[in-house]
Amino acid sequence: MRILITGGGGFVGSALARRILAAGSLAVGGAPAAEVEELVLADLVAPAPDLVADPRVRVATGDLATVVAGEQGADLVFHLAGVVSGAAEADFDLGMATNLDATRAVLEWCRRLEVPPVLVFSSSIAVFGHDPALPRIAEVTDDTFPRPQTSYGTQKLIGELLVADYARKGFVRGRSVRLMTVSVRPGRPNAAASGFLSGIIREPIAGERAVCPVPPDSPVALTSPRRTLEGLLRVAEVSDEQWGSRSAMTLPGITTTPRAMAAALDRVAGAGTSDLIDWREDPAITSMIEGWPAVFRTDRARALGLAPEESFDDIVRAYIDDLG
Amino acid sequence: MRILITGGGGFVGSALARRILAAGSLAVGGAPAAEVEELVLADLVAPAPDLVADPRVRVATGDLATVVAGEQGADLVFHLAGVVSGAAEADFDLGMATNLDATRAVLEWCRRLEVPPVLVFSSSIAVFGHDPALPRIAEVTDDTFPRPQTSYGTQKLIGELLVADYARKGFVRGRSVRLMTVSVRPGRPNAAASGFLSGIIREPIAGERAVCPVPPDSPVALTSPRRTLEGLLRVAEVSDEQWGSRSAMTLPGITTTPRAMAAALDRVAGAGTSDLIDWREDPAITSMIEGWPAVFRTDRARALGLAPEESFDDIVRAYIDDLG
Repeated sequence: MRILITGGGGFVGSALARRILAAGSLAVGGAPAAEVEELVLADLVAPAPDLVADPRVRVATGDLATVVAGEQGADLVFHLAGVVSGAAEADFDLGMATNLDATRAVLEWCRRLEVPPVLVFSSSIAVFGHDPALPRIAEVTDDTFPRPQTSYGTQKLIGELLVADYARKGFVRGRSVRLMTVSVRPGRPNAAASGFLSGIIREPIAGERAVCPVPPDSPVALTSPRRTLEGLLRVAEVSDEQWGSRSAMTLPGITTTPRAMAAALDRVAGAGTSDLIDWREDPAITSMIEGWPAVFRTDRARALGLAPEESFDDIVRAYIDDLG
Repeated sequence: MRILITGGGGFVGSALARRILAAGSLAVGGAPAAEVEELVLADLVAPAPDLVADPRVRVATGDLATVVAGEQGADLVFHLAGVVSGAAEADFDLGMATNLDATRAVLEWCRRLEVPPVLVFSSSIAVFGHDPALPRIAEVTDDTFPRPQTSYGTQKLIGELLVADYARKGFVRGRSVRLMTVSVRPGRPNAAASGFLSGIIREPIAGERAVCPVPPDSPVALTSPRRTLEGLLRVAEVSDEQWGSRSAMTLPGITTTPRAMAAALDRVAGAGTSDLIDWREDPAITSMIEGWPAVFRTDRARALGLAPEESFDDIVRAYIDDLG
């Protein structure tokens, strides 16, 4: 089996690649598990050396439309590439090109293949937003009408709709999943407006200061890297019948606040760790974060056996475990 | 004031143009009424001779992206151009190019203007659809999650999302309205799957036979050409505050069935007129039509003073009146 991961140089893409390589075989689209013969990691940047060193990995670096044009085919595609929320808001044209046009290029490539691959498209809960003209949404369900209030959310929602229509036409076995904000992401901060939701845990654990740019009691929804990967793989695994509606599925997450996260940090990493957090509000980030709903009922994901962590303490504990 | 109508050679575009020219002035976006100095009709085809003859009308024929590139600007844009449902389903690439790429070209053009124009985008109730994996939607409200089941509906919904995001960014004063199926459309049949909803009235009145390709008791939602034009003009007229949410607004319609329409035809045009209808089911059209919801609660439109007709009898009567 050949697998293509776009955004394979990014955090989620690399972590997914490591997990797939470690497993050695994968069940896709309701078929029995098959050996992973080739894993193509497509990105603007090269993946980490440990991935490049695996004989099953092939690196395809460059602009996504050009990269896929040079590929023979795939049984399974994880389309994770994109620019994050803050970057898509700051540079509208970049967001449209990367999040919309490149997604279309990937779909067109799938359409030209002899056997339509299973395509897992990573959308985002940023498709939901607080419409300033309407009452705030108390709880997002599988039927909530998404009213994105960022260009990133708009572009992801358009991607979902394209995936659904290409799937309906039989061009691809497309499945869109809305990822929660992932915390705790290891590594360096990125341009995502939600980046601080990892930073306020990751930096203090490393003995560094971190800024929380939103009010301490702002409700936020998030999930761990581990559950995110489990979600992506489960979505790839199920049959078309199990997948059901061609509309996107929201992955589960827990609802918390930066204040509660800081308390969990102190419980797990030691009292006083959260003193390294500077509570300094940034109105632009606050406005984006508070525009995203924080309470989700993810019945459809639950029916596929996907559940969120029990508590944020578990997430901090798992992050520290993974640091080794 | 300069007004641009894309799809100005089509039925709705031409009727809208005649109405605007007859009024002579128009109130736009909450401002006082201003004189219509120039009305640009952009389309692949030239508009009717009576429109061309008006000294205020300028005709811009050609591919939409090319046409707008040559335009100086506009205070108000009605973006009506597009390929209809049946054509977009039969030719996927044509639908994407015309309904998606051309809409993007119009939005990009608006973005480059010094003063963002008011843009009224004609979306469609085809954004809603019966998802085969989910229970049927009993009633569509302003909050119903659209799950389009046609490429046309998908492309229109993407257009709505782009209009909303361009509006949020301040690139355009965008307003998307979902038009109901329009009946009775005068003239010749077109490639819309819903075309028969005009044909089964129009052709028998003209003494010709017409085919109803769906079961007689299939519920359908529709509205008259007159109410459609009123809706488009009202949406252009209101202030940004009155318009409210950047999400699309559904125009009102009545719920009826082909059988009830035939009965109205006989009441208004004379007993036996509906004998000219051939009830011959076409599974492809039936599947598209039955995929569209037929019961709507259009609170938002009502708040702008827009209401549907009282009965289909009124619609048939108005059609016959307009024939002169």
